[in-house]
Amino acid sequence: MADIFPHTQTKEPADSRDLSEPLIDHAEGQLFLNETFKIIVEDVLRKGTDVNEKVCEWKEPEELALLLDLELRSTGEPQQRLLQRVKDVAKYSVKTSHPRFLNQQYAGVDYHSLSGRFLSEALNTNLHTYEVAPVFVLMENEVLRGLRHLVGWTEGDGLFWPGGSASNMCAINLARYQLFPEVKSQGLFGLPRMTIFTSPESHYSVKKGAAYLGIGTDNVIMVKVDDRGRMIPGDLDEKITLAKSQGTVPLLVSCTSGTTVQGAFDPLDQIADICEKHQIWMHVDAAWGGSVLFSKQHRHLMKGVDRANSVAWNPHKMLVAGLQCSVLLLKDTTNLLRQCHTTNATYLFQQDKFYDVSLDIGDKSVQCGRKVDCLKLWLMWKAVGTDGLAQRIDKAFLHVGYLVEQMKKREGFHLLDEPEFVNVCFWYIPSSLRGKERDADYQDRLAKVAPVIKERMVKRGTMMVGYQPLGNRVNFFRVIVFSPLVSQKDMDFFLNEIERLGNDL
Amino acid sequence: MADIFPHTQTKEPADSRDLSEPLIDHAEGQLFLNETFKIIVEDVLRKGTDVNEKVCEWKEPEELALLLDLELRSTGEPQQRLLQRVKDVAKYSVKTSHPRFLNQQYAGVDYHSLSGRFLSEALNTNLHTYEVAPVFVLMENEVLRGLRHLVGWTEGDGLFWPGGSASNMCAINLARYQLFPEVKSQGLFGLPRMTIFTSPESHYSVKKGAAYLGIGTDNVIMVKVDDRGRMIPGDLDEKITLAKSQGTVPLLVSCTSGTTVQGAFDPLDQIADICEKHQIWMHVDAAWGGSVLFSKQHRHLMKGVDRANSVAWNPHKMLVAGLQCSVLLLKDTTNLLRQCHTTNATYLFQQDKFYDVSLDIGDKSVQCGRKVDCLKLWLMWKAVGTDGLAQRIDKAFLHVGYLVEQMKKREGFHLLDEPEFVNVCFWYIPSSLRGKERDADYQDRLAKVAPVIKERMVKRGTMMVGYQPLGNRVNFFRVIVFSPLVSQKDMDFFLNEIERLGNDL
Ligand SMILES: Cc1ncc(COP(=O)(O)O)c(C=O)c1O
Ligand SMILES: Cc1ncc(COP(=O)(O)O)c(C=O)c1O
Repeated sequence: MADIFPHTQTKEPADSRDLSEPLIDHAEGQLFLNETFKIIVEDVLRKGTDVNEKVCEWKEPEELALLLDLELRSTGEPQQRLLQRVKDVAKYSVKTSHPRFLNQQYAGVDYHSLSGRFLSEALNTNLHTYEVAPVFVLMENEVLRGLRHLVGWTEGDGLFWPGGSASNMCAINLARYQLFPEVKSQGLFGLPRMTIFTSPESHYSVKKGAAYLGIGTDNVIMVKVDDRGRMIPGDLDEKITLAKSQGTVPLLVSCTSGTTVQGAFDPLDQIADICEKHQIWMHVDAAWGGSVLFSKQHRHLMKGVDRANSVAWNPHKMLVAGLQCSVLLLKDTTNLLRQCHTTNATYLFQQDKFYDVSLDIGDKSVQCGRKVDCLKLWLMWKAVGTDGLAQRIDKAFLHVGYLVEQMKKREGFHLLDEPEFVNVCFWYIPSSLRGKERDADYQDRLAKVAPVIKERMVKRGTMMVGYQPLGNRVNFFRVIVFSPLVSQKDMDFFLNEIERLGNDL
Repeated sequence: MADIFPHTQTKEPADSRDLSEPLIDHAEGQLFLNETFKIIVEDVLRKGTDVNEKVCEWKEPEELALLLDLELRSTGEPQQRLLQRVKDVAKYSVKTSHPRFLNQQYAGVDYHSLSGRFLSEALNTNLHTYEVAPVFVLMENEVLRGLRHLVGWTEGDGLFWPGGSASNMCAINLARYQLFPEVKSQGLFGLPRMTIFTSPESHYSVKKGAAYLGIGTDNVIMVKVDDRGRMIPGDLDEKITLAKSQGTVPLLVSCTSGTTVQGAFDPLDQIADICEKHQIWMHVDAAWGGSVLFSKQHRHLMKGVDRANSVAWNPHKMLVAGLQCSVLLLKDTTNLLRQCHTTNATYLFQQDKFYDVSLDIGDKSVQCGRKVDCLKLWLMWKAVGTDGLAQRIDKAFLHVGYLVEQMKKREGFHLLDEPEFVNVCFWYIPSSLRGKERDADYQDRLAKVAPVIKERMVKRGTMMVGYQPLGNRVNFFRVIVFSPLVSQKDMDFFLNEIERLGNDL
């Protein structure tokens, strides 16, 4: 690297007693930012998305700690050393935008979204009042309106939260507040036991939320699912009736649109009937699957979503908006969100301001400081339009179709089920195990295959894909295909690589 | 702007059926990112920190909505139009890094931190497992260790949370879990009423947390404060004793180091004695004041903090790390955090991985996806060292000393109290009100002064500072001085401008 910082040593510490000059040197700072930007473009965005480069550079924790020299010391470091650190962080981090990072529910990169993210960071806005966040108060509102429109609501409310887990929890809190507004002031002590209904394949945040909110994980009642992981409405009805007969108060049904592992869509319309019958808050955790609402072709998977009370949706997942970008959408028009959460702090939400204080939305949240998470989605949406986002969703389904078709043509790939969504769950059966399905130790041996393949791929750095057991099904791979950076050749590579890494097992 | 995008119209939508090419055009995307970066540097970082430029460009909401044209449409927009949008977002956003943005507990900019923020965004890492976040799992750990060291702990635990409010809530949950582990599974139903103790000047998140966690705001007991807003230990002792005698279970005392409005520091050592005596969890909300721990000269304000069970601290406030950067530090060495929050999701936290799965820290949190908030602090800390950060804290106190001295020299500035910290609370008394303290309508008239001055300054865009009432004290200004970008002339400007805007009232 050319020596752009001729004075590599940190400067003499300025005299603290001198108040005439600020502590920050803008010129030096901007130079550093420029150099970092170049590293980001080259190492993270170019190399990090190049299929000829590694997805990850595996190091054992001890070795990595040594390489990174993380310790925080008394004195500062020269700029060149710091730039090397920036390079190292980029080098040893997993390239989550890489077309062969198929490990999680986020992947790929959208440059408009990323531009919005950089701008949000630079502006460092706290989204609580119109006074300090005029642009973003209005923008968040508009993005929420756009998302609600896709749900099928012309009115309603909502807010961005730091993740789908937080959105799911908030839904529980709102359902509780609507039934028992006194919980806000008096707590749950002395109240009847409350119950929440969800499927065992729902996201673990429903349980975490129940624990956090003082409801308890035992009061999360698991409704049976069919083979494909979809909630069985008849069983829901029975479980609600049973819970009522046991003297508990059913609070909320949390359905899932796009379960984490199998990508299943609970039958919302039928569940809505049951929620209506029992008058229970219907929440849809569409953190993962919500983005199908953009697609004319696939939005039927969420038919009935407009009948829900609340919908959680993470544009940071399938829409590639970047972490964190998560909303809770509400059908409510009675200002429930604000009533449930307000404490009317006078230092922030003064009522004698010179503008319409209903724009001071911060008190709707249980957060105080709140990052701006709407700009990245807004800018990306403006850039490609609703149609462009729909196209990405449709293409993801096509990719999955192709992948499944190819798997069927190859020996050794065994699907759990025909996928409903972009999660493809499969076992890879090495040749030594083929035809041995009836052996007593078959399942045990099969369970050990995925972890070994995973270890090999991570150590080679060629790709990343996750595995897990589920119910009585031993370890299987879940490959998720939706990044706008992937193409057919990445899927072919994926299949070949699994074979190459696993065939000798 | 030169026409860097010769084909300004969006391209023909690619054929969705063609799987041979990805949907993203890297070259075009990187060009857009480059242009955005230039706008950020020029409009946000250069102009946005230039005292000759405005802090804010006030528009009425309706007008701003028209200017921004926020609506989300079916089709995408040409790149030039999008870049204009980036410029508009920058233009109409409040310049929170401006040396005359004195409105909130965040301000200024640190270029190393900002570089870390851009890098975090580009890497788009989810901080839950070592597998996908090797660098950041280790780095978060090291930053937490560094912060714990300043608290005075050689061991312990902790985690980054999306804000101080979330950190405070988590402390309540941990205190509850320690006393009543069964709450996690069974909820609060049937348990004795639990109580939380804090001062009326503590942050509203304590109440929001109590409501959210099902404990209820009425069970947050307000301990008296002295004139300067510091909790009175004797009253705490009495209130705890009383609460016990009423059959409630005292859960936690939430002390504040650096209250939001007055910047008061509760006497931690004395409060620790009382917590020990009653065996109650001692939590210190140092979201705002925690950064004094860097300063040899001022850390005495938090004497006794090492006796606490938990400390919440927001480096996004006084340390200028950028939103969001917030930690909860724990003295605990028994893995309470993990036990309290784990649900052992097998799709993420597989136990048969090929590395030490205790590095998969995600299950310690109630979040699932978790943004990387440690890199920005780590890089800034590496850049200036512990000493450099200490210097910033010390300098902030010097600035405040200067400001207070100047206020005393001028007529019309009336301090609420001698500041303990970097919050300077004062009334501005316009000449028409001077000497009228005994008039019946004096307080009413005084209450109207700050809102008018505020309106005028925002509409002129010269600076921003907040006001609020507190208890029986009518609207006063709270000016907060800590940004590493400020210098003496900004404080002189501040005083002159308040006089200029308010003298005729
Ligand atoms: C179905 C579902 N709901 C909720 C979540 C949680 O979202 P987050 O990670 O943003 O908390 C996830 C993802 O991890 C998910 O798959
Ligand atoms: C004392 C105190 N505690 C907690 C908070 C809340 O922090 P956050 O805004 O990150 O939720 C604040 C700031 O607003 C504060 O001043």
